[in-house]
Amino acid sequence: MSGGGDNALVVLSGGQDSTTCLYWAIERFGRCHVSSITFDYGQKHRIELECARDVAAAAGVSNACLPIDTFAALGGDALTDASIAVSDEKDDETELPVTFVPGRNLIFLTFAAAHAYRHDARHLVTGVAQTDYSGYPDCREDTIAALQKAISLGMDREFTIHTPLMHRSKKETVELAVRLGGLDAMALTHTCYNGSRPPCGECQACRLRAKGFAEAGVRDPLLDSR
Amino acid sequence: MSGGGDNALVVLSGGQDSTTCLYWAIERFGRCHVSSITFDYGQKHRIELECARDVAAAAGVSNACLPIDTFAALGGDALTDASIAVSDEKDDETELPVTFVPGRNLIFLTFAAAHAYRHDARHLVTGVAQTDYSGYPDCREDTIAALQKAISLGMDREFTIHTPLMHRSKKETVELAVRLGGLDAMALTHTCYNGSRPPCGECQACRLRAKGFAEAGVRDPLLDSR
Repeated sequence: MSGGGDNALVVLSGGQDSTTCLYWAIERFGRCHVSSITFDYGQKHRIELECARDVAAAAGVSNACLPIDTFAALGGDALTDASIAVSDEKDDETELPVTFVPGRNLIFLTFAAAHAYRHDARHLVTGVAQTDYSGYPDCREDTIAALQKAISLGMDREFTIHTPLMHRSKKETVELAVRLGGLDAMALTHTCYNGSRPPCGECQACRLRAKGFAEAGVRDPLLDSR
Repeated sequence: MSGGGDNALVVLSGGQDSTTCLYWAIERFGRCHVSSITFDYGQKHRIELECARDVAAAAGVSNACLPIDTFAALGGDALTDASIAVSDEKDDETELPVTFVPGRNLIFLTFAAAHAYRHDARHLVTGVAQTDYSGYPDCREDTIAALQKAISLGMDREFTIHTPLMHRSKKETVELAVRLGGLDAMALTHTCYNGSRPPCGECQACRLRAKGFAEAGVRDPLLDSR
């Protein structure tokens, strides 16, 4: 095992959760030790890439954007396949959300580790959570623990995957963002399944976000931005 | 957990090892249950893709080729970076081969699992080996075991990663290919680091291959093909 120091790389999607994680990492490791990575995997909602860039800039950390053309080639998921609508519906056969992209978080974290390997970082931070709003098996704690072992062995370097939101509700995530000084940055994030800006307010993603802010008693700054 | 049956997907690079694994899978699962997948990850030696296609056709199984544009974007490895020669040299800092692409086998197997997920297969077969010719940490048995757990948990399906060559020497791999009727297909494979066809015979990859055939007492059919 070798290298890595105390540098951290945050997987930044441009959403509320990963943005909160970015501020968590800045507090935990110090701004000058934090960088972020975003994946352009052919997602229909291209606005996510701009949001990630803007969030990173607002937080004062670098943002690398890596392409992944493989998911679109695999096909069959709502996030990249034009023939399937992004929604909160579930696949009849697997009973997983239609937005489930097999292996997406595994791939993101493995490529993040490869990037971190080249840039002397051994801490990876991701906003996955297994609490009330997920349903994705690759967001579970046991999956992440197995993956941490696989990438550490596979790259011969001790990586740590941090999941500060793993057991937090949306309400608690909002409270964390507020405590870390990341509330203003929420105006720059994207959540809406319909890709709307301002958000549609009707889709499951918008409703879950609104519920979290309401329960935390905090006004979502995204609603006041244009 | 759901689905998958007894279908197997072989990660086929077009080389000697993965070709041997293809014949192993055909014997183990039956030809009609076997398919193959090849990754176009920007490797300099594009001939590998043709070899994989030809090997699969000769073996009578399908071959899907998936793009991965991410490794070239990451840069810094000899297999995709035009500024680094493919050789048997080691990186001064990490003491790993310059041909080591961080996470390559992890990514290949995870995307293979995603493809298998969509195509009702739960057996993955890969030609990695931790014996005398490797030096890649992602070829080790413990790495593969951890990854099997990560992808099974992360996709909520019990995958098995088969590594028939894990503890075989090159000599034993040649003997296995002969026993499985895969010797003729070796004429279609690619091994040479220099991308030459016929092979250069001078690079480490060519020398290791020649040593294996010599020790097995078998004539390499690649040497007689033009």
